[in-house]
Amino acid sequence: MKTIFVLNGPNLNMLGKREPEIYGSKTLDDVAAECRKAAKSLGLEIDFRQSNHEGDLVSWIQEAREKADGVVLNAGAYTHTSIAIHDAIAAIAPIPVVEVHLSNIHARESFRHKSLVAPHALGMVCGFGSLGYTLALQALAAKGQVEAPR
Amino acid sequence: MKTIFVLNGPNLNMLGKREPEIYGSKTLDDVAAECRKAAKSLGLEIDFRQSNHEGDLVSWIQEAREKADGVVLNAGAYTHTSIAIHDAIAAIAPIPVVEVHLSNIHARESFRHKSLVAPHALGMVCGFGSLGYTLALQALAAKGQVEAPR
Amino acid sequence: MKTIFVLNGPNLNMLGKREPEIYGSKTLDDVAAECRKAAKSLGLEIDFRQSNHEGDLVSWIQEAREKADGVVLNAGAYTHTSIAIHDAIAAIAPIPVVEVHLSNIHARESFRHKSLVAPHALGMVCGFGSLGYTLALQALAAKGQVEAPR
Amino acid sequence: MKTIFVLNGPNLNMLGKREPEIYGSKTLDDVAAECRKAAKSLGLEIDFRQSNHEGDLVSWIQEAREKADGVVLNAGAYTHTSIAIHDAIAAIAPIPVVEVHLSNIHARESFRHKSLVAPHALGMVCGFGSLGYTLALQALAAKGQVEAPR
Amino acid sequence: MKTIFVLNGPNLNMLGKREPEIYGSKTLDDVAAECRKAAKSLGLEIDFRQSNHEGDLVSWIQEAREKADGVVLNAGAYTHTSIAIHDAIAAIAPIPVVEVHLSNIHARESFRHKSLVAPHALGMVCGFGSLGYTLALQALAAKGQVEAPR
Amino acid sequence: MKTIFVLNGPNLNMLGKREPEIYGSKTLDDVAAECRKAAKSLGLEIDFRQSNHEGDLVSWIQEAREKADGVVLNAGAYTHTSIAIHDAIAAIAPIPVVEVHLSNIHARESFRHKSLVAPHALGMVCGFGSLGYTLALQALAAKGQVEAPR
Amino acid sequence: MKTIFVLNGPNLNMLGKREPEIYGSKTLDDVAAECRKAAKSLGLEIDFRQSNHEGDLVSWIQEAREKADGVVLNAGAYTHTSIAIHDAIAAIAPIPVVEVHLSNIHARESFRHKSLVAPHALGMVCGFGSLGYTLALQALAAKGQVEAPR
Amino acid sequence: MKTIFVLNGPNLNMLGKREPEIYGSKTLDDVAAECRKAAKSLGLEIDFRQSNHEGDLVSWIQEAREKADGVVLNAGAYTHTSIAIHDAIAAIAPIPVVEVHLSNIHARESFRHKSLVAPHALGMVCGFGSLGYTLALQALAAKGQVEAPR
Amino acid sequence: MKTIFVLNGPNLNMLGKREPEIYGSKTLDDVAAECRKAAKSLGLEIDFRQSNHEGDLVSWIQEAREKADGVVLNAGAYTHTSIAIHDAIAAIAPIPVVEVHLSNIHARESFRHKSLVAPHALGMVCGFGSLGYTLALQALAAKGQVEAPR
Amino acid sequence: MKTIFVLNGPNLNMLGKREPEIYGSKTLDDVAAECRKAAKSLGLEIDFRQSNHEGDLVSWIQEAREKADGVVLNAGAYTHTSIAIHDAIAAIAPIPVVEVHLSNIHARESFRHKSLVAPHALGMVCGFGSLGYTLALQALAAKGQVEAPR
Amino acid sequence: MKTIFVLNGPNLNMLGKREPEIYGSKTLDDVAAECRKAAKSLGLEIDFRQSNHEGDLVSWIQEAREKADGVVLNAGAYTHTSIAIHDAIAAIAPIPVVEVHLSNIHARESFRHKSLVAPHALGMVCGFGSLGYTLALQALAAKGQVEAPR
Amino acid sequence: MKTIFVLNGPNLNMLGKREPEIYGSKTLDDVAAECRKAAKSLGLEIDFRQSNHEGDLVSWIQEAREKADGVVLNAGAYTHTSIAIHDAIAAIAPIPVVEVHLSNIHARESFRHKSLVAPHALGMVCGFGSLGYTLALQALAAKGQVEAPR
Repeated sequence: MKTIFVLNGPNLNMLGKREPEIYGSKTLDDVAAECRKAAKSLGLEIDFRQSNHEGDLVSWIQEAREKADGVVLNAGAYTHTSIAIHDAIAAIAPIPVVEVHLSNIHARESFRHKSLVAPHALGMVCGFGSLGYTLALQALAAKGQVEAPR
Repeated sequence: MKTIFVLNGPNLNMLGKREPEIYGSKTLDDVAAECRKAAKSLGLEIDFRQSNHEGDLVSWIQEAREKADGVVLNAGAYTHTSIAIHDAIAAIAPIPVVEVHLSNIHARESFRHKSLVAPHALGMVCGFGSLGYTLALQALAAKGQVEAPR
Repeated sequence: MKTIFVLNGPNLNMLGKREPEIYGSKTLDDVAAECRKAAKSLGLEIDFRQSNHEGDLVSWIQEAREKADGVVLNAGAYTHTSIAIHDAIAAIAPIPVVEVHLSNIHARESFRHKSLVAPHALGMVCGFGSLGYTLALQALAAKGQVEAPR
Repeated sequence: MKTIFVLNGPNLNMLGKREPEIYGSKTLDDVAAECRKAAKSLGLEIDFRQSNHEGDLVSWIQEAREKADGVVLNAGAYTHTSIAIHDAIAAIAPIPVVEVHLSNIHARESFRHKSLVAPHALGMVCGFGSLGYTLALQALAAKGQVEAPR
Repeated sequence: MKTIFVLNGPNLNMLGKREPEIYGSKTLDDVAAECRKAAKSLGLEIDFRQSNHEGDLVSWIQEAREKADGVVLNAGAYTHTSIAIHDAIAAIAPIPVVEVHLSNIHARESFRHKSLVAPHALGMVCGFGSLGYTLALQALAAKGQVEAPR
Repeated sequence: MKTIFVLNGPNLNMLGKREPEIYGSKTLDDVAAECRKAAKSLGLEIDFRQSNHEGDLVSWIQEAREKADGVVLNAGAYTHTSIAIHDAIAAIAPIPVVEVHLSNIHARESFRHKSLVAPHALGMVCGFGSLGYTLALQALAAKGQVEAPR
Repeated sequence: MKTIFVLNGPNLNMLGKREPEIYGSKTLDDVAAECRKAAKSLGLEIDFRQSNHEGDLVSWIQEAREKADGVVLNAGAYTHTSIAIHDAIAAIAPIPVVEVHLSNIHARESFRHKSLVAPHALGMVCGFGSLGYTLALQALAAKGQVEAPR
Repeated sequence: MKTIFVLNGPNLNMLGKREPEIYGSKTLDDVAAECRKAAKSLGLEIDFRQSNHEGDLVSWIQEAREKADGVVLNAGAYTHTSIAIHDAIAAIAPIPVVEVHLSNIHARESFRHKSLVAPHALGMVCGFGSLGYTLALQALAAKGQVEAPR
Repeated sequence: MKTIFVLNGPNLNMLGKREPEIYGSKTLDDVAAECRKAAKSLGLEIDFRQSNHEGDLVSWIQEAREKADGVVLNAGAYTHTSIAIHDAIAAIAPIPVVEVHLSNIHARESFRHKSLVAPHALGMVCGFGSLGYTLALQALAAKGQVEAPR
Repeated sequence: MKTIFVLNGPNLNMLGKREPEIYGSKTLDDVAAECRKAAKSLGLEIDFRQSNHEGDLVSWIQEAREKADGVVLNAGAYTHTSIAIHDAIAAIAPIPVVEVHLSNIHARESFRHKSLVAPHALGMVCGFGSLGYTLALQALAAKGQVEAPR
Repeated sequence: MKTIFVLNGPNLNMLGKREPEIYGSKTLDDVAAECRKAAKSLGLEIDFRQSNHEGDLVSWIQEAREKADGVVLNAGAYTHTSIAIHDAIAAIAPIPVVEVHLSNIHARESFRHKSLVAPHALGMVCGFGSLGYTLALQALAAKGQVEAPR
Repeated sequence: MKTIFVLNGPNLNMLGKREPEIYGSKTLDDVAAECRKAAKSLGLEIDFRQSNHEGDLVSWIQEAREKADGVVLNAGAYTHTSIAIHDAIAAIAPIPVVEVHLSNIHARESFRHKSLVAPHALGMVCGFGSLGYTLALQALAAKGQVEAPR
């Protein structure tokens, strides 16, 4: 049974905690539950974590090299600024990392258009809310069977 | 039963036609077949097309306004240069458009990092080969049930 | 009697087809009718066309060299990206081309501020909706009598 | 009867004063006369002014808020550098301002391609010499009847 | 006997049609005749085409993969903007493509200095008028015998 | 009998001196021999030189004004940085200068895409190895007979 | 008793003159009254002025060198474009100048993020409406007692 | 009684610890004491913290959503690079955040001119040393009574 | 006898008014006196003026067209920002304008390296303090006898 | 008696050698003669040199440290690219260097607007042809008596 | 006996942990041992640390002010983004900091070419693997005896 | 016994020749002596040279291919501008080149931050004065034993 790390970056702990009529009522715990359900049906085990510290994300990605078969990474705001996360992803190759964002980052402020996660990621899913985590897990489960040109 | 347009841009007709040991043996017809299979299981009907002409893509997106409930769009190279496609997507709102790319465009040449499809798209899937089309169809099928922050 | 080509680019065929309470109820056919009416009063004949294809616009501008005394050009999104249209306008000099836009393009997204139609156009009218076509026809009719510094 | 301010910026007082064989023999007084004639036929009254001072243009635009129904503004060189004029136009909304230039500014030096008048202007006319003022007055007279998308 | 596609982009159909005292009297048909003559002496067969449509050029380059041993490409204005042509050239490797321009594009406007044809082309000839086509055919004929460092 | 200066810039003396299996075994002396052979058949005389000093290239180009009928110039790395060479070429007009590069400089590092030789050169040949010198000589021999638009 | 010049730039005379439900009902006279009240309690005397002319602001800042012990400067739109004001502030050193803005200029259009007042100003207060003037006067009153690192 | 978080970023713990003749003798503890004194006179309670970790600042800003009525934030060097802090401030709206800097950041190195704190902050005070904290507290105390245009 | 306008821009009235041990004791009146002395020996008459208003400089340059044979212009800070002055200089051609600066503007802040006076000026003198005015007058006196390449 | 080095860079040896009706008939020898004449009347001795080699200019500037009291430097094209000359000028401080250009470099191509000679030069004269050398010698002769602000 | 802090940033804990045939078998512990050996022979004591947290590096650099005589800093990816580390180094002056990198960062991706450690560092060593630490320690040991121009 | 070329670029011959109280009294001859001493203890032989000519440096680097086992290169100002030196270093691979600078170039003007020596150099040492040469020789002596990741 494969293990997948699902890692969440800064401010994602705030999810669903306020103004549910605008942002939805789903909390990060709800997302974790959805992930666990999807993982179960795909025969995967997941380890779901969140931190506001860039250093924690770097350490957890490193940890994945020994303990995981893949990573779903929503690095939040660090996506756009962290060369350290970029290097950590490169350092754990060939463990596949899938980049996820709740919103469509390319349709937001221009400083969110650049991703330092992308250069060494397998692929990316964005804009579908928490469903993106499920799609990312599917992609990791299918890894090996799919043909993706570089 | 919902209808989804699956639109493919320039050079995608070349898929799988050469050097199968490198690029894989899957042709655009195979991708269409996969899409039809996925669509069936999701209760969707699809209309699958390809053109090397920017103008055709513009016209087909416009056509979706009357005839489709959603669009999966792999605009190929026009993704990065076509304001006309950008405007066509805006013009058919609220018909949802999901952007798909076979490869992880953010890990390639810098002129592929900017997307003019993205500003008015629901979301994007890239880097998972033809599996991306299936994930995009899932996202369109789930549209309405998922909560995505802007 | 002078002949004027009135050429329309991508997505202008969508005009007035949706959400009339927001975008107005005027269709491209209505604009054509207004143009014909204005042309009549100015003693001009017009040939009114639309295409989503950049190549068609290039060919029509070339055609104007033999068959027209002036061109009113709303190149839509191709205004900002088409060097081919830029070159076609240069190639038919001294046939005058007047650039028209329904909206005030300089008050919109920055990628709409640059015009590749402008360098070889006689002048530009923008921001007045379909009235702009009428004003452009007036300018072409007065051409030869007006003094415009370069 | 509506009153329109026709405001002219730096160096426009030099118009027609030199080398008539090159720049034409029309002076700013001639332009004023043309404007008055056009205004009369459109049922408008005009107040025609010129200054080389940015501060005067700012004050006159402010004055329009109380005394005018619209502004035709040829801000000359200040078009490209004056945030103060930009702010004055914004401050008198919804009094409509139409931007006019004698020459086609988009076909000249690149520092003339950016307009700080445009973001809050109704629209723009350029490249038709003094005829542009007449067209601008027509657009202001028709304001309310024309539909211009944003 | 080798077959070479000689492909011409937008506005090249206008060649020699106007102001012969300035632009020369040579038409695209004359260029085609020169190419055929040069080809004959080099033991090559040529297929000479022109289109104003980017999509046509993309399709013809793809077609070259099956039907040609080399391509002489004068993509005109699309040289500077078409990622789709860039991708088509990459997709038909190792069929060699030689970039030709009648004028010295590096001595003209800065927007003509960047070539999207170049990254996957064998080489380039520009500035020698129609003679450039003959030189390009010579280079293709010699291909395999010449040593070009990368 | 016309005399052509064939001038070579920095590092071209290293040609063919190392790793012949990779870079080819042709030395600069071999290129000179090829040039002489081509020149003979074209009825030209050549003066073939190389220097690592920018100042030498400037002086030789100046010298061409008195002693040569044309210049074939491979300025090597100085192509991209030398305004002095740019000015020297301008100063000897109308002596024609043809720019040559062994490799396709537009397909290499971006700092090699800009040429300061180009603005005053007749044209350019690149990417065909030493064959480029022969093609350049042909272009110079044909100069006067060819029509090249600017 | 110390004298402070409170200088206001273009369009600030429009304050509170329109749409009080949106922009507030406070006029520039009200701001002057608030300043006088705050000044009184701080033992300062103020000289409150406004002009739409850049040259007036330059002259007034110069005048402060002889007649004032400090300047509160809201240069409005000239903040972002006036090197002349920049130089005037430098020229009256060590008379302290405090930059004030009613709105948070760093949260508005990017052309308002650069301040040419700042390089030689003591400090800045923005975003607190007219309260900012009072805070600026406090800072000037405390000048000499506060320690601010550079 | 309102509670205000006063949050300090990296290196602010070094304040006053060295070279008092240059940087002043005031330590961060002294600043805290000043804040407490000012808070008392304004009827506010403060919670004063410092950390060198970006993640701590993100967490504390989030914590303010539940426990504070306003935030005074001197994010130090993270001001210019942290999108995570930018997002945290946005996430706790409408809790007001006032940006404070001891020095006039706009008068220092250009990399300190951009603030990622500003877009969602109420306003900013800089350049007045520790007095800035007191002014910021005043602004927060007056919040609701002051009218600030956006 | 030729008349030369010597025009001075913003802040030059401050010259020599403060800290003579640093900036020198020479006032603008002293510079005027030096100019008159130099003019006398060169057989020129001068009209010496200063203003902090951009509009005054524009008007005075226009005035020179009728009343002067040449202009010495130290536009101060407006040198770097005023397109209006740029246009005024162009409008009075062929009256020669010589640009003067007391300091070496190219050795100061980068925003002082660009001159909008230069494109239509005869030449420039900078870095020699008030002596520059004398040298500029010499250049104007010699105008017609000197050969300056463009 | 003071000695001044008058140093000339690349292509200045071509002066007056061609097309005298356009560029004037003055050669570099004529300029040297003018300099000697001006020097004599100013009580200066000059050493006049020219080279196309950047390295020679660097060595000569260094040599000036021991043998000259000032340098007049027309570095030609190296003005815009040579950090080595920049460093050499800095290394001989406080020997004054005056930058001279025959043409008004700020009115030519933008790559000639940046000067690497300027940062450590005393001042600059440009646009007055060979008269500029005489003016530069005057400035060097007056050095010590003139007050130039920095 | 002098104490040197040897501080290592993100991902350096991964050193030598994987694919030893490619990246070498040396771990960070091995580097620490090498440092201790070199330190011993130089009469230095070292304190060797690593963290993935930017805040830890900031705190350790601050700590060096009291406890160390010098710092060897390999800040990893934070080198290129951390203004906080930049400020910390500035804050502990005159404690010398030597920047070390295992690889030649200037020969890698362009985002690694900028160093925020450099502006306040004594110097830098890069590209020599772990030997760089030894060379850095030598430089710190020699500090005071070496003469380095600024 | 290995031979190392120690090559020095422009202005390094000025070292120690002036203002010894500021720049130190060490001349380039002293540096050469230090290098010889260090070389001796490392079992290396050195060939120490200096030139102000870029072309000499290019030729010497080429010469190293046949006559040296490594190069220590302080290219001075040419470091930042010479593509010719960049190409020469690439052409002599795998002869290792170590880049040396006396000062910390990354802490100086921004035009010194870019190195064209770096992309093909083994590594770099800067900021330690002449000690840098000794460290560079140590790195070359250890080459083959050290493991440096790319």
